[in-house]
Amino acid sequence: MEKRDMVYEGKAKKVYSTQDPELFIVDYKDDATAFNGLKKGTILGKGAINNRVTNHLMKLLEKNGIPTHLVKELSDRETLVKKVTIVPLEVIVRNIAAGSLSKRLGLPEGTKMAKTVLEYCYKDDALGDPMVNEYHIMAMQYCTKQELDLIADYSLKINEILTDYLKDLNIELIDFKLEFGKTTDGTIVLADEISPDTCRFWDSITHEKLDKDRFRRDLGGVEDAYHEIMKRLMGE
Amino acid sequence: MEKRDMVYEGKAKKVYSTQDPELFIVDYKDDATAFNGLKKGTILGKGAINNRVTNHLMKLLEKNGIPTHLVKELSDRETLVKKVTIVPLEVIVRNIAAGSLSKRLGLPEGTKMAKTVLEYCYKDDALGDPMVNEYHIMAMQYCTKQELDLIADYSLKINEILTDYLKDLNIELIDFKLEFGKTTDGTIVLADEISPDTCRFWDSITHEKLDKDRFRRDLGGVEDAYHEIMKRLMGE
Repeated sequence: MEKRDMVYEGKAKKVYSTQDPELFIVDYKDDATAFNGLKKGTILGKGAINNRVTNHLMKLLEKNGIPTHLVKELSDRETLVKKVTIVPLEVIVRNIAAGSLSKRLGLPEGTKMAKTVLEYCYKDDALGDPMVNEYHIMAMQYCTKQELDLIADYSLKINEILTDYLKDLNIELIDFKLEFGKTTDGTIVLADEISPDTCRFWDSITHEKLDKDRFRRDLGGVEDAYHEIMKRLMGE
Repeated sequence: MEKRDMVYEGKAKKVYSTQDPELFIVDYKDDATAFNGLKKGTILGKGAINNRVTNHLMKLLEKNGIPTHLVKELSDRETLVKKVTIVPLEVIVRNIAAGSLSKRLGLPEGTKMAKTVLEYCYKDDALGDPMVNEYHIMAMQYCTKQELDLIADYSLKINEILTDYLKDLNIELIDFKLEFGKTTDGTIVLADEISPDTCRFWDSITHEKLDKDRFRRDLGGVEDAYHEIMKRLMGE
């Protein structure tokens, strides 16, 4: 399978069409951005790590009954995926208060939530990905009620699967962002990535941050943190 | 019934205890604030208008099956109400895009929503009344699931009753904010006020704003707008 036209370039990935109209190739970049693109940089080796970590976790999820867009890893940075239309929502799953939630609700970082929290943001860079609720989503027809219910169910199940899996690796899953897509036949599948770019991973013992917060907050050791996650997940 | 101790002073109202432990007296002020208290002013006669308009609309709602905190109007500015513990949520009901919703979702003011939108904000001045969704409300235990379902049902029903009633007076109900309280026996009742301070009212024909946006946006004719609403509702 070979890349043809670039159909999309995001902050961390490029997507290409292939000779098969139902398949795309995702190509992961080392570019890092934060705060809706206001902060820019490079995390050396990030593209390869995020590609491999994402595929590793998506295989785990597929085994546990979550449909994903994953078809096959092609190279260090490239993966063959199903062509999907992205549902224009970021789903944020929160187990422990951190980041924007801590600020908004006045909760110290590290506060355990009494229940898992789902948040939805409307994917629109110009608007700054505003938070929306189910009423906005229905009124704006970002997706149907059936699709949203399925997305919420999948998100909570993904949280359980990942939390359990990571616990054994001494990684605490604080929160993470998911995106879903619709295949040509209308099936909702998990798309995008699951990586230190899109998750908050804390070491269970030391509470050291092993994710993009090291870049966002200039904590140093950014590359080491990404490598540590890959090592714990894949033994390399 | 006489005022005893002031138990609460808000931006637009004072609340006093009475000799009856189950009853409070609300006293409406002419003070006007906007943007979470950043803009301050006075709207002459507002207290009396908001008191009378609120009671007029609460009576209409009671007749239509919505329980409220209203007991009896005592004077131009004072009303006897049931003592309640306020549920710490502002419920915003939106029929037409305006204000913060227009900005957040990039919708021109006046855009009709395909469905009525409910938004919840956690009442906390220091945090700027942040928007929350049902997951936050459950995790933070701002109220129970049963209470929230009832509050949502009441809010949508109140919207239908008020929209229908105001239409005949050539007033379009764009959006409005509600607060609910819990009486000593745990009953959820509508509390706070329903007035040009808490609703966006547009003239159905001219689309002229007849509400606090005239104060927020320095449009002039603030007092006239409040008087016009009272005149249309109460014939005075």
